[in-house]
Amino acid sequence: MARTQVPLPLTYRLLNHGPATLVSTRDGDRANVMAAQWVMPVDFDPPKLAVVLDRTTYTRKLIDASGVLAIQIPERAQAQLTQEVGSTSGAERDKLAAIETFPGDVLDVPLVAGCLAWLECRVAHSPALDEVARELDLFVVDVVAASADDRYWRGKGIALDTVQTIHHLGGGRYVLSGESVEARR
Amino acid sequence: MARTQVPLPLTYRLLNHGPATLVSTRDGDRANVMAAQWVMPVDFDPPKLAVVLDRTTYTRKLIDASGVLAIQIPERAQAQLTQEVGSTSGAERDKLAAIETFPGDVLDVPLVAGCLAWLECRVAHSPALDEVARELDLFVVDVVAASADDRYWRGKGIALDTVQTIHHLGGGRYVLSGESVEARR
Repeated sequence: MARTQVPLPLTYRLLNHGPATLVSTRDGDRANVMAAQWVMPVDFDPPKLAVVLDRTTYTRKLIDASGVLAIQIPERAQAQLTQEVGSTSGAERDKLAAIETFPGDVLDVPLVAGCLAWLECRVAHSPALDEVARELDLFVVDVVAASADDRYWRGKGIALDTVQTIHHLGGGRYVLSGESVEARR
Repeated sequence: MARTQVPLPLTYRLLNHGPATLVSTRDGDRANVMAAQWVMPVDFDPPKLAVVLDRTTYTRKLIDASGVLAIQIPERAQAQLTQEVGSTSGAERDKLAAIETFPGDVLDVPLVAGCLAWLECRVAHSPALDEVARELDLFVVDVVAASADDRYWRGKGIALDTVQTIHHLGGGRYVLSGESVEARR
C-alpha cells in the first residue's frame, strides 16, 4: 500500500465529516489501540483536533504517559475491527497482537494498516487545557504529520466515491458515508 | 410538524455520527443563525457538547452576550440553506428574515423549522473553559432540552433509513449519510 503525505493545512478534510476513528499509542514497550467517535478538528493551520479520551481506558493511561497518539480513519471493511477494539480493553489483552501496524513517520506510534488515513498527534498543553482534560477527558492535540492511502486521497480530500467511512451511531450501529452533493455558492 | 422530546441521556445519538449543524441564538431583539460542522458530544449524562464558534462571526458575538444557543440538525433538503447561512454574515443581513423558526421549549432561542432535531444549550463556564473558549474558540455547552421531528426519531436514535444528514467535507461539498450497518458484539 502506497501512502501520500497530506499537507498539514488540509488535514481537517480527513476528519471534517465526522467519521469514527481508531486511536493508537505507544509508551515504551506498551502499545494499544481503541475506537473514538468523539474527535473533530478545532483549527485549520496549524491543525488541531479535539478528542475525548475516557479516563477509564488503557489507551488514555498510555497517552497520559507518552503524550503522543495516532488518530486514523477506518473504512467500511474495518467496522468489525473498530467495534472490537472499542469494546475490549488493552489492560486485559494485547489488542495489537492480531492487528497489522506500521511505524509513524514522525512519532513513535503504531499506525493501523488498512485505514484510509493517519494523523500523528501530540497532546497540547496549557494550564487551562490540562484542567479541561482532567475534568472532562477532553483533549486538544496538535497534528504533526498526516498521510493517506494513495488510492483514496484526491488532492483536496478523501475520494468518498471510492471508499466509505463509518460513523458510530451508538451501540455498535454505524452509518456509512453515502453520496456527495455540492451546494451552490 | 409534530415533535418528540428526546430524553437527555439519548441526545448524543442525534450528533454522534458527525452531521453538520445550524447554530442559532438570540440576544434581546438580535437573533442569528450560522452553520457549524465542528460540534460533537463530550459527555452522555448530563449531556455536554463541544462546539467551535469562530470569534469573527456575528452568531458568536450574540452567544457571548446571551449565553444560550440552539444546535439543530439539517436534513438533505437543507444543504443549500446550510451553505448559505454558513457563508454569509448576520452582521450584514438578517439571515432569519427569510427562514421559518419557532421558539425553544426551554430557552429563548429561535429553532429552525424543517430540521430533524433541535438541542437547546447553555454555555458552560469555569475559569479553564472560559480560557479555552477565548484562546481556541472552543466551547463546552450543556444540553438542557432536545426534541426531534416525530417522523425521524425512533426511540433510540434517528431513523437514518428515512432521512439523510449532511456532513460538510469543506468548500461547500457535503457527504450524505448512507446505509447503516451493525457490528457483531
